[in-house]
Amino acid sequence: MPTAQLPLDHACLIVHGTDSPGIVAAVSALITRQGANIVQFDQYSDNPAGGAYFQRVVFHRPGLREALPAIEADLDETLGTGFDLRWSITDQSVPKRMAILASKQDHCLLDLLWRHRRGELPVEIPVVISNHTDAAADVEGFGIPFVHVPSVAGPDKSASEARILAVLADADADFVVLARYMQILSGEFLERVGVPVINIHHSFLPAFIGAQPYRQAKARGVKLIGATSHYVTTDLDEGPIIEQDIVRVTHAQTAADLERRGADVERAVLSRAVLWHAQDRVIRHGNHTIVF
Amino acid sequence: MPTAQLPLDHACLIVHGTDSPGIVAAVSALITRQGANIVQFDQYSDNPAGGAYFQRVVFHRPGLREALPAIEADLDETLGTGFDLRWSITDQSVPKRMAILASKQDHCLLDLLWRHRRGELPVEIPVVISNHTDAAADVEGFGIPFVHVPSVAGPDKSASEARILAVLADADADFVVLARYMQILSGEFLERVGVPVINIHHSFLPAFIGAQPYRQAKARGVKLIGATSHYVTTDLDEGPIIEQDIVRVTHAQTAADLERRGADVERAVLSRAVLWHAQDRVIRHGNHTIVF
Amino acid sequence: MPTAQLPLDHACLIVHGTDSPGIVAAVSALITRQGANIVQFDQYSDNPAGGAYFQRVVFHRPGLREALPAIEADLDETLGTGFDLRWSITDQSVPKRMAILASKQDHCLLDLLWRHRRGELPVEIPVVISNHTDAAADVEGFGIPFVHVPSVAGPDKSASEARILAVLADADADFVVLARYMQILSGEFLERVGVPVINIHHSFLPAFIGAQPYRQAKARGVKLIGATSHYVTTDLDEGPIIEQDIVRVTHAQTAADLERRGADVERAVLSRAVLWHAQDRVIRHGNHTIVF
Amino acid sequence: MPTAQLPLDHACLIVHGTDSPGIVAAVSALITRQGANIVQFDQYSDNPAGGAYFQRVVFHRPGLREALPAIEADLDETLGTGFDLRWSITDQSVPKRMAILASKQDHCLLDLLWRHRRGELPVEIPVVISNHTDAAADVEGFGIPFVHVPSVAGPDKSASEARILAVLADADADFVVLARYMQILSGEFLERVGVPVINIHHSFLPAFIGAQPYRQAKARGVKLIGATSHYVTTDLDEGPIIEQDIVRVTHAQTAADLERRGADVERAVLSRAVLWHAQDRVIRHGNHTIVF
Repeated sequence: MPTAQLPLDHACLIVHGTDSPGIVAAVSALITRQGANIVQFDQYSDNPAGGAYFQRVVFHRPGLREALPAIEADLDETLGTGFDLRWSITDQSVPKRMAILASKQDHCLLDLLWRHRRGELPVEIPVVISNHTDAAADVEGFGIPFVHVPSVAGPDKSASEARILAVLADADADFVVLARYMQILSGEFLERVGVPVINIHHSFLPAFIGAQPYRQAKARGVKLIGATSHYVTTDLDEGPIIEQDIVRVTHAQTAADLERRGADVERAVLSRAVLWHAQDRVIRHGNHTIVF
Repeated sequence: MPTAQLPLDHACLIVHGTDSPGIVAAVSALITRQGANIVQFDQYSDNPAGGAYFQRVVFHRPGLREALPAIEADLDETLGTGFDLRWSITDQSVPKRMAILASKQDHCLLDLLWRHRRGELPVEIPVVISNHTDAAADVEGFGIPFVHVPSVAGPDKSASEARILAVLADADADFVVLARYMQILSGEFLERVGVPVINIHHSFLPAFIGAQPYRQAKARGVKLIGATSHYVTTDLDEGPIIEQDIVRVTHAQTAADLERRGADVERAVLSRAVLWHAQDRVIRHGNHTIVF
Repeated sequence: MPTAQLPLDHACLIVHGTDSPGIVAAVSALITRQGANIVQFDQYSDNPAGGAYFQRVVFHRPGLREALPAIEADLDETLGTGFDLRWSITDQSVPKRMAILASKQDHCLLDLLWRHRRGELPVEIPVVISNHTDAAADVEGFGIPFVHVPSVAGPDKSASEARILAVLADADADFVVLARYMQILSGEFLERVGVPVINIHHSFLPAFIGAQPYRQAKARGVKLIGATSHYVTTDLDEGPIIEQDIVRVTHAQTAADLERRGADVERAVLSRAVLWHAQDRVIRHGNHTIVF
Repeated sequence: MPTAQLPLDHACLIVHGTDSPGIVAAVSALITRQGANIVQFDQYSDNPAGGAYFQRVVFHRPGLREALPAIEADLDETLGTGFDLRWSITDQSVPKRMAILASKQDHCLLDLLWRHRRGELPVEIPVVISNHTDAAADVEGFGIPFVHVPSVAGPDKSASEARILAVLADADADFVVLARYMQILSGEFLERVGVPVINIHHSFLPAFIGAQPYRQAKARGVKLIGATSHYVTTDLDEGPIIEQDIVRVTHAQTAADLERRGADVERAVLSRAVLWHAQDRVIRHGNHTIVF
């Protein structure tokens, strides 16, 4: 299965917690003594006088895989005392495993599959799950397993959600993308899935929350329509926003035109959000994101 | 007082009503037999099978002023039978009279005054009314009368609104622009003012309706902020949208940064809406606008 | 083969020539007496005092196919005397036949094929020709014939161009799209092909004319990169521009990043240019286009 | 004279040179031992394997003014051995002194003066120099000294340039902004001025280099027009680009319309470039800029 060329011996370190003096010095000293060289360093503090602190460092360390346990032990020791910080580190040569959930609309799904095949996304795609069978041939044409999990009529979705959870577990997914998946996932599902879930909403949130946003946009007579990619939480359409974009429309366009034009924005916005998540550029903080 | 160079002997005809066959033919035959030549012709029908019809024609007629009564009589006769249409015609060499209401924030106000001085807006500005005195010197520096109408504490604004209405009547205003005017106008005011009122709202409506939209935007963590210019109706922030635009923001920007960055979008959006209104490019239809 | 749902009994009439009084009246009277109703009317004159005149009218006429000969005869008669105008009329239920030429890069090609399958483009695609075989399986997966015409080494391309011309003639192509086709077509080819040829150039023309525009852009340190779709003429990269767009870049992006990011702009720009051409919205005039 | 509220006890440190391991660690250790806390940290390396290195750090140090000599000595010692780096440090509570050169067109000039008055730009404006007197009253209305230096006919500008240099020296300018200044400055002037000079060019460089770019744009039939702010070098229109932006135009707009519409882009682009320069966010490197 094709994947992007991923950089060997590069690690991405995320540090996140309460700001206090000396964090940059402590982390950079650690990286130097671990024989690594900083490639990229991003830092943000929402209030230098004791607010939240966010840091993303990419560093190069020959023989990274073997060195990781020692680096992790050093991080535990260095950041574990005198700071209120959490950290996570990833080997950038290991692609994240991205599972996709889709429905009838295929534009976001196909866009992700194409970009993956072109090597634009540093991910593996172990499985595409859909509650429709329309996209099966396309997905398999990309060499990716397709699983059909029909939606169940009525409010109790526990059976189909259990099936999806089992497929995701089998696929060992690191995160899940809802590529215009038209079923609302239950709070129980979100709790049990255990990995981030990224959605694309077909409006410029918080405008037009809920169903049929293009119809709502036409009714309101807006001059711009948009799309929003966000992490899914139990508050529908209210999760932390990763990326948004818009496109200009006119009175002469019908709701169907808006939908067609909007589809281009949706796939562009979702692909950027997925890329940034896969590159560990997005840090969640409350209902916000910091995107480095 | 400086104004834009306005085209002599050019008229703008707006036709608006129920679509039916033959409207374009009837109007263009009329223009031809009235000795005029079409310069620009825009037409839109929201449903050719009997929906609403919108038409804007700019035509050149030597000796327009003298010819107007005959043209108007012809329009009455031609469109008055067999069609369900309203029309209005304006001599484009006559600038509209635009009154401005402002408060403390001066960026939209100054932008309009400066564009007017540059000849970018085909309007006269007979008066600027403000509930603060801060901008008095600037306004008078542009050679434009400034009237201070202090806001009245408490819910009863009838006294200050009566004063504003009197000033607008004296100024013979054709339309009113709320250039970040921070008082909510009563339904009675809107009924009595008798001319269109254009507002600039500092958000991408319908997102962040109400007070302090930049603060709301920061709290929601959006990646784009915007501004919306709309006609004022008694439904606050719900009137027909004329123009909108947005600008990209990041997590690193504070609410104050958003406000500063948003001010640029506000003045750009408002100036476009005002220009288009002054050029008779905007037709209101229910809660929508057609912008030619 | 899937195509967009095309409107029955709708015609698009283009009128183009020297402006003079009475054109709108003559055309609209003709449409009315031919039993048709105007759906959309766009008009532009680059100088009302005798400049160039451009008009696009979409009208609805029950039984259009049968009525067309009479309408055409009426157009000949009406516009043939007293005016200096050319006209063309198309039945909008008949899709244009669009042939595609491609090379190794497949993002523009696949985007067009996928939009076509979704019904977004009112065209048939009789053939895809490439000087590489990479895309053969994809193209045939979309149910579209693929023809491999290898490029010939050396300056004399007449043999391969003759082969392409023969395939295009067999395909009865109404227009040709160069979807990142990396061979320069000779003047003789362009003369003999006899139909419009649309190209996508991977820069914001006229900046970075010639080879490797992303590399040129990186070298110049621009903050925006773009793409341009234009009609192909014998002056390389100098033909009439149909559509352009840009995307923001930073110092941190490599030339390869620009290329990847630019690919999204390229396919978006090309798809809009192709759509507008297929809808007869684009009129060529000298080295310009009027896009209604 | 009004200026923006500038942060007390904040310094901005720029480090620029050849990349090598340990720079971040060395700088952040220095900041910590100097009793300061990092507020913002941006870093970029164009090639981690020994390319160019760029770093911007904002840090907070109580009693900064008194501490600066010690910090500077520490920087000399720390970065002077084992690294190939230059550094500069500024006290962010001290506004830069920005001189403006203008001509007849006032939109960029007035925009800068307004923004300055609103407190948007962390600068002082000691003088505005113009080769015309039109803007004198406006400038003095803002409380800023205006100096008229008429342009000299003929190729020898040395007299007027000498006068400008004298005024700039008197004004103790830290940088110079050409706000649509329509005289070409000689290489000798640029050499002697000794401070950065920022220009706004009214096109999307490198398109339409030279005179009358809007006329060139109209002639080429582009669908977007733009503006570019760049540092001035002896290669006309070829200096390092700081910021660019564009706006969409159509066939229906005349060259005069493009000029009017472009003026909005020019003032927006120039104001961003000036802000970023004043905040020490722009690092020049060869013919490029790194903008943090």
